[in-house]
Formats: sequence, C-alpha cells, structure tokens
Amino acid sequence: MSLESVLARIDSDLPAATDRLLELLRIPSISTDPAFKDACQSAADWLVADLTSLGVRASKRDTPGHPMVVGHVEGPEGQDVPHLLFYGHYDVQPVDPLNLWDRDPFDPAIEDTAKGKVIRGRGAADDKGQLMTFIEACRAWKAEHGALPCKITFFLEGEEESGSPSLVPFMQENAEELTCDLALICDTGMFNPSTPALVTMLRGLLGEELTITGPAKDLHSGMYGGIARNPIRVLSSVIANLHDAEGRVTVPGFYEGVPDLDPELKAQWDGLDFEPESFLGEVGLSQPAGETDRSGLEQIWSRPTCEVNGIWGGYTGEGFKTVLPSKAQAKISFRLVFQQDPLKIRESFRAYVQSMLPPDCTVDFHGHGASSAGIMETSAPSFEQARQALSDEWPEAAAYVGCGGSIPIAGHFKKILGMDAMLIGFGNDDDQIHSPNEKYDLNAFHKGMRSWARVLEALTRG
Amino acid sequence: MSLESVLARIDSDLPAATDRLLELLRIPSISTDPAFKDACQSAADWLVADLTSLGVRASKRDTPGHPMVVGHVEGPEGQDVPHLLFYGHYDVQPVDPLNLWDRDPFDPAIEDTAKGKVIRGRGAADDKGQLMTFIEACRAWKAEHGALPCKITFFLEGEEESGSPSLVPFMQENAEELTCDLALICDTGMFNPSTPALVTMLRGLLGEELTITGPAKDLHSGMYGGIARNPIRVLSSVIANLHDAEGRVTVPGFYEGVPDLDPELKAQWDGLDFEPESFLGEVGLSQPAGETDRSGLEQIWSRPTCEVNGIWGGYTGEGFKTVLPSKAQAKISFRLVFQQDPLKIRESFRAYVQSMLPPDCTVDFHGHGASSAGIMETSAPSFEQARQALSDEWPEAAAYVGCGGSIPIAGHFKKILGMDAMLIGFGNDDDQIHSPNEKYDLNAFHKGMRSWARVLEALTRG
Repeated sequence: MSLESVLARIDSDLPAATDRLLELLRIPSISTDPAFKDACQSAADWLVADLTSLGVRASKRDTPGHPMVVGHVEGPEGQDVPHLLFYGHYDVQPVDPLNLWDRDPFDPAIEDTAKGKVIRGRGAADDKGQLMTFIEACRAWKAEHGALPCKITFFLEGEEESGSPSLVPFMQENAEELTCDLALICDTGMFNPSTPALVTMLRGLLGEELTITGPAKDLHSGMYGGIARNPIRVLSSVIANLHDAEGRVTVPGFYEGVPDLDPELKAQWDGLDFEPESFLGEVGLSQPAGETDRSGLEQIWSRPTCEVNGIWGGYTGEGFKTVLPSKAQAKISFRLVFQQDPLKIRESFRAYVQSMLPPDCTVDFHGHGASSAGIMETSAPSFEQARQALSDEWPEAAAYVGCGGSIPIAGHFKKILGMDAMLIGFGNDDDQIHSPNEKYDLNAFHKGMRSWARVLEALTRG
Repeated sequence: MSLESVLARIDSDLPAATDRLLELLRIPSISTDPAFKDACQSAADWLVADLTSLGVRASKRDTPGHPMVVGHVEGPEGQDVPHLLFYGHYDVQPVDPLNLWDRDPFDPAIEDTAKGKVIRGRGAADDKGQLMTFIEACRAWKAEHGALPCKITFFLEGEEESGSPSLVPFMQENAEELTCDLALICDTGMFNPSTPALVTMLRGLLGEELTITGPAKDLHSGMYGGIARNPIRVLSSVIANLHDAEGRVTVPGFYEGVPDLDPELKAQWDGLDFEPESFLGEVGLSQPAGETDRSGLEQIWSRPTCEVNGIWGGYTGEGFKTVLPSKAQAKISFRLVFQQDPLKIRESFRAYVQSMLPPDCTVDFHGHGASSAGIMETSAPSFEQARQALSDEWPEAAAYVGCGGSIPIAGHFKKILGMDAMLIGFGNDDDQIHSPNEKYDLNAFHKGMRSWARVLEALTRG
C-alpha cells in the first residue's frame, strides 16, 4: 500500500531528517539584520542543494533583498492530479535578547523536556522545522515510489520576518511560473497538541503611526503646566476613546463588512476545547478583555480589533524631568476580518482622530501595512480531503480554525495568482516563536511529515 | 549720598564685572554629570577667591556631592540692621544637544542682538549671571563705603540643577551658622523686561512614576489582540480620566487647601499686562488649556496642575512591531499651591489610580520629589521696602508674582531655619535656560546689580 510504506520510511528516516533540520538551523539566516545577509544566501543555497537531491529543478532567484528559492518537479506521467505549490520561509527572527537564551540560538539540539523531546533553536518552529516537514514527506515519497504523487512547485521565501518586501513584485514578475492549482502553506499551528488545524480565516492588518503635536517645542511644566496643551494627555484621550465600554471599536464604519459568524462554524468553534481562562492564564491574565458579548475564540479569530502597540512622548529616562513635551506618538494596529476594507478604515480612523483633537493640536499619520482578511474556500473538496487526512494522523479530528495573526501570503496567492491556499502547520502555542528559546516538538516534526504524506495522498488519490 | 555713589561705581565698573562673569561662565560646572566633578570644584574655588577679595571669610565646604560655598562678612559696627543671607547656585544644566548651540556653551561672549547686548553661554542666566549681580553690588558698596551695609552670609550651592541632594542635610548640620533675619534668593525672573518682580508664591511639586502591568510578558497582537488586556490602553484611560471636561483634576481631595485667590492680589494680577495668547503664541499655541474658569496667570501661578511628563510602552522604534506589551509607564507630576499636602495627594492619587484599574492589571508606583507650595510673608515691611527699591530702578513698578515652577530652597529656609525668603531675579522668558543658546541680557546684569544696591540700601536704611 503506497501510503503505508511512505509513513514507515518517514519513521525509519526520522534521525536523518532531524540531522538535516539541525544543519539548516545552524545557518543564522536573520533577514532583518544586514549583518546576516550572507547567511540568508547560505540558507537558500542549502535548500537548493537539498531540493536538487530530490530531483527538483531548484534555483536561487535574486531579488532586491534576500533570494527566493524556486523549484519544480514533475509527478507521475498521465495522471489527472492537481499541480501543488508549497510555500515556506527560510529566514528567521532576530535572537535578542541573547542573554535570555539557555543555549546558542544557532547551535540547535534535541532536548528532553517534561513534555517530550524538542528541537531547540532559532527557526525550529518558525519556519525551518515546518517547511522541512513537507520536504521530508516528499523525500520519503520519492524514495518509496521513484516519483512524487503530483507536479509540485516549491516556493521558499527569505524575507518573511522582515515584511516580505520582494514577495509581491516577484510573484507578479513570475506569475505564470508560480500559478498552480492549490497552494500549501506550512507556517501555522495546531489547535492544541492533539488537534490538528486548517486555518481558514486570517485576520488582515492595518498599521498606523500617529504623532500629535501641541507646543512648538518642549516646555518646562513649571512655567507652562496647566495653561499649555499637553500632547500626551491629548493622545491618551484619543486612545481611551477608541473603544466603548463594551470593548467595541468606535471608529465610524469600522464594523462594515463584519457579519456574525456562520452558525455552523460557530458551533464547531464552541465545540473546541478552548478555555479563555487557561489560554490567558499562561500569560498571567484571567479574563477576556475584548468585546463583552463575544466568545474567546471569536475575539481572537473572527472579530476585528484595535490595539496600541507602542506609545512614547516626553521624558522617559531615569529620574524625573518636568518637561511638557511638544509631541506624543503611538503605533496603533487594527486586525481586520471578513470584508473590512483596510484603506477605508485608515481614512475613517484618521478623520476620527482629527475630529477628537482639541485646539492647538495637529496630528500626522504614517501608514504601515494594510492587508485585508483572508477567508479560505472551504467548500472546495480538497479541504475536506485534507481535513480527513489530518484527522487520520492525530488523536483528535482536525478543525477549521481562525488565526488572529496576519499571513499575507495567502491573500497574495489569491489576488496575484488566483490560487486558493490551504494553511496547515504543526506549531504549538508554547513554541516561543519570535522569543528566546524557540523550539519545535520532535513529535510535531515527525507527525508533521507523516501528515503531509497523508495530505499528498488524499489530494492526489484521484 | 551713599546709594548714588554705589550706583555710579556699578556703572563704571560694568566692563570689569562682565569680564569676571565671563571667567566664571568658562568653568563647565555641570553638576549632574560626574565627568564635570572637578569643574564644580573649580567654580567653588573661584567663588571663594572672589568673595575673599571682598573681605568675606569664605570657604568651600565638603558635602557628599559638590561643595557648598559659605562666607560671612560683618557690616558696620553698632547699627541696628538685619543680618541677610544671600543664596545662589554655581552649577549649571547639561548642554546637550550640543549641535543646537551656535557657539561653545563654555566659551561665553557678549553678543549684539536685535533686542540688545546679551551674555551668551551656559549658566549666564541660570544662575551664575544672577548670583554675580548680588556679589557685584556688594563689591561696589564695599569699594565706596569700606564695609557692607549689614552683616551678610553668602550661601552658594553646587547641586541645584541635580536635585540638591546635599542641601537639606547641610542646612540641618549648619543651622545655627546659616540662620539670619532674611534670605535673599536670586534665581527667578522679571515679570517682563520692564517690570521687576518679587516672587511671593511658588508652586510645590509632586512627582509620581507609575508602571501598569497587564500580561506577564510581551504578547503578539495577532495571537492575543482583542482578548488580552493591553496596559497601554489602560494607562491611556487612567490619564484621560485625571481631568474633567472643565480641566479640573479629578483626584479625590485634590483641591483641599486651595483657596480662591485673595481679591487684592487677584486685582493686581489682572492689572498686569499678561496676554495668554502672546505668552502661548511664543511656543506655537493660542488658547489656555487649563481650568476653563481661571485666568491665564491663575492657571500658571496659583492653580494646582497635573501633567504627564513622559509616557512609554511597547515598541517605539522604527517600523512596526505588533507587540501587545506587558507594561506601560508614565511620569506624572503635580504642581501644588497654598496648603495642598503633597503626601496626602500622593496617597489619594495612588488609591485613585488603583480604583480605575480593570481586572488583570496591577500598578507599581515610584515616588519622586514631594514639596509643598511656598507662600511668602508679604506683610513684612521688608517686602514693601524691596518692592519700592526695585520700582525705583526699572521703568515699571515691581509686582508680586507667582511662579509656576518650584524653588524648594525658599521652603527649606522657612522649615529648617525659620527664616523668610525674598525671591528677586532679573531673568527674562527668552533666556533659554536649560536649553541651547542660554543668554542673560547685559541690561539685566547691569540693572540687576543696581537693583541689589537699592534693595540693600532700602533694607538697611533703618
């Protein structure tokens, strides 16, 4: 039986697969720091070589930033199977603060922990370990069957952790080459360690930076305190007024294009074992702080938000300085859902802030990213096929879930290439991605490979 | 006539007096920066030598920080005249940002400007130029009369710009030596360039630093945005709620001990040529932002305030990071008036902030300075004598004014030595103290010396 032998091969090859991952993890491919430019090249070279060893026609493709790795491989002759694209990213987050790591982030190792063996190192979960689950599944398939089950295009990025500046232009310039029937993306997580997940709803993201100016220069609060407009107080009022007492965002028109959740999906979510108290308990909190009339999963998956990510103004050093500052600034981001229009919300937000300003204040805005939410086409048969395949591998049935974060790549595939995407990943909440001591469960790595073998089989069964 | 000859001597000696001041200004006695410790010693030495040349028994007195300069001189025998203390400070503010200075801050010079000649350099107005107005007046008096008109104790500090850590202990240890009949303090300004002022109301200062903690660590706003408590939003709400719509501070009990202004003084203030629009216009503002039912002078002189001097939290660097931070912090200061009790207000403020916190938030407080307001005993005859003397020198009659800032020394003299203080100074609003390009008008220096000669004459006329 074709799948069983691939799974057995994956099991017996686990030590070698782990060694290959450790090798890739040793390359410090931090994309955001120019000092690691060569390492990004090395990681791309490593992947080109590894894909080539699988019979993939792979190459490193230059961009103004770090290179893309693109590879193509044919499937068996004469079968009517989909042409799949696989996406992952080989770049990793910076590692500071380095002193909070228990080991060199780029000297990865297998560690025994109370919860089982983990692969510890920067990029283990985000995203090198994840992308290798797919490549290893392909390797086992190729070894057992001499060819992959379908035509596959590999598309590996090196700038995901630094805003993907080259991604859209590259996709536009190479649209024909990259267009397949379906994209598989491995950069997400499990619902919990025993419940696999397909992410079918992604929140969009709108970033705004605002600078409120009052006096023309910093003033002494003795001389001017009381009579002069203080931009920190103005900014605080603006922020305090962005939500009402029920936790709803007050920006006019904000909820346009935000329907209530489909009752069937809501029922599925209500059936998931999600306790806001324990989800929040892990970060020292106990009560959901969002819209008072929405469940915890709705708050993080299907409801839009407005958060302040940074604020600063005046004197922030040691001791005290009685300055009355000229400016106060904040970075504010919105998570968007369903059909919310980021550019319309940007406009409405800016007008709303303007309308709240007292006399003698001005505001300047600087826009950061603006991406719509992503909603997957779960009515396509491939989604139920993949869901069943994942359910076969793991203790619990796979779930369609939302994702609070933004993974713009899925939207790009849809918009630029007209291609649907399926987001499957094996990360866990405690993987510490973007933080010190990042890890990937060895079990996630192993069963991740097995999951992909099952998904490939299910999608190409014909 | 004894005063006229002193005034003439001051006039003829102006070039030499200016040279002496330039010499003192060349010593970079920045008290807050340990790199300038030796310079503070040199400034103290310079003053000891200069006072000694006047026949003052002066010496440098060690403290755990920078030294005090203390000197004593006798007046004429057998006259019933007050024993005066003169206070000033020889330390200066740091000079950064250095690139905003048009010349080396410690290479002072006389410059011609559209408004007349100025002495440009760090410390010219705050406080070396001011303290020298008094010493030069004494020098001229001594030269003309062979002795000063009364017994004078000189008390010059070197830590005023860095919080005066040694001041209170030194005063306590040397209380007997320092106790006189009246203290003269030269560290304040004119009401305007033609109207001299005696500061008779000083606002007190209470500093509080608060840290609001929500989640135990920084979170990703994709994963937790909406459901997790954001301390920046909590802090913003707290700050927004510290004032009501009329600009009044909402801290319970805040206005205890704050009477309405004495009608006579209010009438005097209303008669002063103060246009909030032009006061604010110089710093790019146009409308008073304080209590809506109080005049501009009340807002800055006799009403208490609550201002935010600094705020920070989350990601404040270039670009965008969708962090949901664990902590948000602010530095808040209160200017206090009349009988407001700083410690009671601190307690009330802390309880009030606590009461505003939503679930899952904690707050830590760190107290900075806490000083009461200072109210001078203007009913003492010496005040009217000095006011007349100043009025004789300048185009406009001298005014009793308030001061928005805090000059704790006056309170210390009262509390520790039981001695009233009189604050007379010749600074102007455009002196740029604490900022680049500090200056002192040559006219202020010249007429300041003449003013002191007149005040000395008036207070010792008998």
